[in-house]
This record gives sequence, structure tokens and C-alpha cells, in this order.
Amino acid sequence: MGIISEPTLLLNPDICRRNIRTMNNRIKKWGGVFRPHFKTHQSAVIGEWFKEEGVGCITVSSFKMAEYFARKGWEDITVAITATILNVDIINQLAAKINLNIVVEDGYTIQVLEEQLKYPVGVFIKADTGYHRTGMDADDLVEIKGLLNKLRDTRKLIFIGFLTHAGNTYEARGVDSIVKETELSLQKFLALKVFLKDSFPLMQLSWGDTPGCSVYDGFQGVDEFRPGNFVFYDYMQSEIGCCQLTDVAVCLAAPVIAVHPQRNEIVVHSGAVHLSKDRVTKGDGSCSYGKAVSLRGMEWDVESEIGEVKTLSQEHGIIKAHYDKIISLKPGDVIGILPVHSCLTANLMKKFLTTEGNLIQMMQ
Amino acid sequence: MGIISEPTLLLNPDICRRNIRTMNNRIKKWGGVFRPHFKTHQSAVIGEWFKEEGVGCITVSSFKMAEYFARKGWEDITVAITATILNVDIINQLAAKINLNIVVEDGYTIQVLEEQLKYPVGVFIKADTGYHRTGMDADDLVEIKGLLNKLRDTRKLIFIGFLTHAGNTYEARGVDSIVKETELSLQKFLALKVFLKDSFPLMQLSWGDTPGCSVYDGFQGVDEFRPGNFVFYDYMQSEIGCCQLTDVAVCLAAPVIAVHPQRNEIVVHSGAVHLSKDRVTKGDGSCSYGKAVSLRGMEWDVESEIGEVKTLSQEHGIIKAHYDKIISLKPGDVIGILPVHSCLTANLMKKFLTTEGNLIQMMQ
Repeated sequence: MGIISEPTLLLNPDICRRNIRTMNNRIKKWGGVFRPHFKTHQSAVIGEWFKEEGVGCITVSSFKMAEYFARKGWEDITVAITATILNVDIINQLAAKINLNIVVEDGYTIQVLEEQLKYPVGVFIKADTGYHRTGMDADDLVEIKGLLNKLRDTRKLIFIGFLTHAGNTYEARGVDSIVKETELSLQKFLALKVFLKDSFPLMQLSWGDTPGCSVYDGFQGVDEFRPGNFVFYDYMQSEIGCCQLTDVAVCLAAPVIAVHPQRNEIVVHSGAVHLSKDRVTKGDGSCSYGKAVSLRGMEWDVESEIGEVKTLSQEHGIIKAHYDKIISLKPGDVIGILPVHSCLTANLMKKFLTTEGNLIQMMQ
Repeated sequence: MGIISEPTLLLNPDICRRNIRTMNNRIKKWGGVFRPHFKTHQSAVIGEWFKEEGVGCITVSSFKMAEYFARKGWEDITVAITATILNVDIINQLAAKINLNIVVEDGYTIQVLEEQLKYPVGVFIKADTGYHRTGMDADDLVEIKGLLNKLRDTRKLIFIGFLTHAGNTYEARGVDSIVKETELSLQKFLALKVFLKDSFPLMQLSWGDTPGCSVYDGFQGVDEFRPGNFVFYDYMQSEIGCCQLTDVAVCLAAPVIAVHPQRNEIVVHSGAVHLSKDRVTKGDGSCSYGKAVSLRGMEWDVESEIGEVKTLSQEHGIIKAHYDKIISLKPGDVIGILPVHSCLTANLMKKFLTTEGNLIQMMQ
């Protein structure tokens, strides 16, 4: 009996390390600081692979995640989700031990934090450069200057600069489109330095998104880079156009539980609780929850396509498959599924089995 | 500082126990066996609430889940996902200790299991009665009789009957529509008894789906019922029309991290890793990832609507909110989100905080 008998998230360390090295080299070339987002892998072991490339500071997406990585020895952490007064206790616990940066975007929170924090923390103001999720509108200098005024005399909140997440690049399809979205956001972002550098000459600009960081090279003026997803990439990123399927470092091994040739369908034990219900809209308008490919042992073959995951329930996935692939499969075989969104799949699976047969745990 | 400072899945035990009691009474009225699906709550503590109502046997959606509940004292478990030859070892481990039922739908698997199992297990044949996911087409008597022949002389695989999941009812909107979908599937299902009872007079029919079990009453001839989601219900079930929002027993408490009145938006710390990316299509064609309501302490108020979750990223949710609600909220407040799909939300959150302040762990 082989090792794999249930849905298992496989990880290829060579591809993963190559992704880390490539991104690290790009950012070095631009002269910036690499502060990778660890929300994609959430793993101390993979964190070590970053350390081996010289990375010394990280980004996380929650205070809980910051606690985990602080326990694992990381001493310079930015929590990229906007902080609120609810986070006072955990900020105090963390800032007692490590160099912590938080993100703010409103005056009330700044006021309460300044009163209640015990130790200094670095503060970024979240800037909205087109994604319209969180952040102060980067064009709204009046509002921004109002917030900066509140940070002028604070002793616990030490203003570092502006942080943006150019999530609008995820709507792009193809390198030209990624470049266009990146340039639109970057223009607004760099303008902040132009307008504010007289008052804040040491102000830093911190940029994060995998598509832009993967294909764009015009980042002069940006000081720090926080991409995260590139560590694994995924099916969505390949559709966006910033990587190849051969750059995807993870693949969900999924047992075949039923074969329905008359419907061109294979049913796999791989559902929403393994992949997530994130789906990608492809160039032809069709949707997919994952790309099914052949698996030999623990190696998957992106050239050997089986089909697309069309439907997901809690534990089941239905793949619309090519007929010649269906007739070669039977219940008990195991296939591979390249996940649409590797951050969400990893978050669900909570551990990896490497192609070398080692188990890597993630933050629980 | 209040108890809630991060996304927290609240559970109202009164509503939950009421849901359990109501479904139990319905099934008793029909004269059937209640074999509830535990994949929605995945919790030993909530399992005890079922025991208190007289439930003695359960359904689960994976062999791992069966192991967890067997460890917690459950001795009669059906694993409802189609078994394959990959499951031999775990079936042997479980069947050594408890009464285990498995589900099969192909001859090759039957053959290998019969050779390799050490202890007898009960066997259901999965019947497709219209959902077209897994199962033998309930109309295809030739195929079905072929499979039954393979089970005629087996000593480890003890044929019990047919099991179906009428997932097609999830497409319904409104009681009439649920009833129609249920009757379509039930007709095919009951026909199996008519055609096969001479050869298999003890054959059982096992039915599972929350919408049908919640509103339909014509189940004469069905022996066993396996609904699961009803224990909590959710926003999707209320849109399907088989429950009220006041029957929903869980609610995600989500901190407000930013307020954007100019866009009628509130941003909450509640993303795909908390709710899941399942969404519901409402009667007017719009989509939602969750219904935002007011929270007072740990009690949520379904009458006090804040708005709909329109966008989800990994940790962030964007709510399109009513203006009068937005202006009453600020960063650091906590609101409630009724999840679209409570099974997936619970699976992500892995624990509940009851409205009485107790922590309930789920299977890890």
C-alpha cells in the first residue's frame, strides 16, 4: 500500500526554494528590503528556507500568526491587517519581546493605542492605491495629513511609512495587464513620497502583491516588498499570467472514489474542506476549482492534464475529464490537483508532505 | 476589554438543542432511525447533546472522522463517502472496535475489500437519485443487480441497503420547490425497494439531506435518515427556504477594522479562512458571503441587519452596509456574520464559544 490514502497536500521543496531565491534576487536587484508575507505557508520550517536566503523580517496577516512566528525565533514582524483597540493586549505581549510593526488607518485607534501601549511599535499607515479594500485613499492628502498629525508627537506609535496591497493586480490577465495595474497603483503610491518627503524624509514605502513583484521591474522609490503567494504560486496566478504551472510548488493528492465515463466525470475525495471554494475564471469564461493532473508516486506532471474540478461539496470534487484519461483511471488511484488559491488550500490542510517524504507542520 | 478580540465562532446551545430535538421528533414520527451526519459540528460535546435525545448511531464524511468519534465512544458509525481499496487498513482498525458501515459503488472495490478485510462491515450501495455526484444511477437496475450479485456470497461485506444524498434539494428555493425535488428523488429511491424486495426483503433505505428532512413529511418506506446541517442551519438553508434565520445556531463574531461611509462599506476581520468562500445566490440574483447582523455581547440579533458580505480575501471581509448602520459603527466594534455554509465555517474555525461563555473544541 502506498503512502497516500487520503487527501494530502504535496510540496516540492526544490520548486519552493527556487521561487524564494528568484523573488529574493529580484528584490535585491531593486535595492529593496524583502519582508515576505508568511500567510501563504504559515510554517516555521519553510520560514527557515527564507532565513537561509538571508531574509530577516517578515509580514503576517494576524496577531495570532505573529505570536507563532515570534515563538519560532522571528524578531521583526509586521502585522499587515489593520489594528484596532481590541488588539492592545496582544500588541503589548508581542512588543515586549520583538520588533513589531502594526498598520493603522483611523485617528480614534491611534489615540487609544497611544494611551494603552506599553512599548514602542512601528506604525505603517495603510494606503489604498486602487484595490479599495482597506486603507486611506492615497489621493486624499488632506485625510492623510490629518492622520500624520496625530502621529507627530506619539511616543509609542513610531511612524515608519505607508503600506499598500495592490490586490487589483489579481483581476489582471497577462503580463501587460499586470504591468498596467501595477503602474496605476505605483504612481499613486510614489506620489506620497513626493508630497510628504519634506515633512517625513525617512518615510518608507512598503509594497505587496505577488503578480506585480513577479513580472514588473520599475519599483524605484519603493523601499520594502511583502509578496507572499509566490512561495508556492497556484493555478490562479498562472491564469493571471505571472508564473508557469511548473512554478507551482504544491499539489493536492486526491484519491479517485468513482469514475463515470458516461458523464466524462471522475469523483475524487477532495472537497471544499481541502481545496477551499475559491475558483478561477479562465480566459474562455469557464470556472474551475482546480486543475487535475497525473500523479506518479509523489511527483505530479503539469503536462499530463486530466481535467478541471467543476463542482465541490464538503468532501467531494467532481472533475470533468478527458475521456482518454477517464478510461485509464479507477477507484483507488490517486491524482493531483493544482489548487486555485494555495494560501487557502494550505490553511485548510495544515500540513505538507514533501516529495522527499517528509512531513512539515503548519501553524495550528 | 470584552472576551472577543478576534474572529470567533459563537454557538447558541438553546437553538442548537432545539434543532436536534425538532429533527429527532420528525424522524420518530415517520418511524425511521435517526443516524445524524456529524460532519457539520465535528464535535464530541455536541455529539453528547444528540445522545441525550436518544441517538445511538451516526454518519461521518471520512474515515478520519470515524476514528475521532469512535475514540469518543460512538460504536455504530456509517462512513458516507464511497470507500476504495486505499481504505483497507483504516477499515480494519475501525471494524475491530466498532460496528462500521461503509459505502460502495463499484465491483473492483468490492472484490478487493472482500479479500483484504479482517472483520465484517455493513455495506450500503450508493444510489444516485438525481444529484449526479456519486452513486449508481437508481434507474439502472441492470448495473445495480450486477453489483448486488457480487455482494451475494461475501462474508466480510454485509449488504444492508441503499444510501442516497439528495443534494439536488440545495438548488431549491422555497418549500414547494424543496418538496418537488425531494419527491423526484424519493420516487426513484423507493422504486429500488419495489424492484428488489423479493431478493432482499431486509433491504434498508437510508436518506440524507437537510432541506427535505426539514419540510417534507411523506417519507414512508425510508428506514433511516442522515441529515447533518440542520444542527446549526445557516444563511443558505434559510434562502433555500427550509428554516428561519432564528433557527441558525452559529454566528461568526467579527471585529470591525475600518469604516468607509463614502462607499457604504465596513471592513471586518473575517475572511475566507474564517467563513469559507462559499456564497449564496439570493432571490434577486445578488450574491453574498454572509449576512452581517448586530451583536450585543455574545447574542446576535437577526432582526438588526447591517448588510451583506460582498467580498472576501484571506482575512478581510467587505460588507456593503446600510448607511444608518455604518455611522453607528467604528473600528474595534464587533459585529455578527451568519455564515452561508455552517459546515465549512465550523470546519475552518475548529472551535465554538457558546453564548454561555464555554469553549467547545472540534475534531482537530
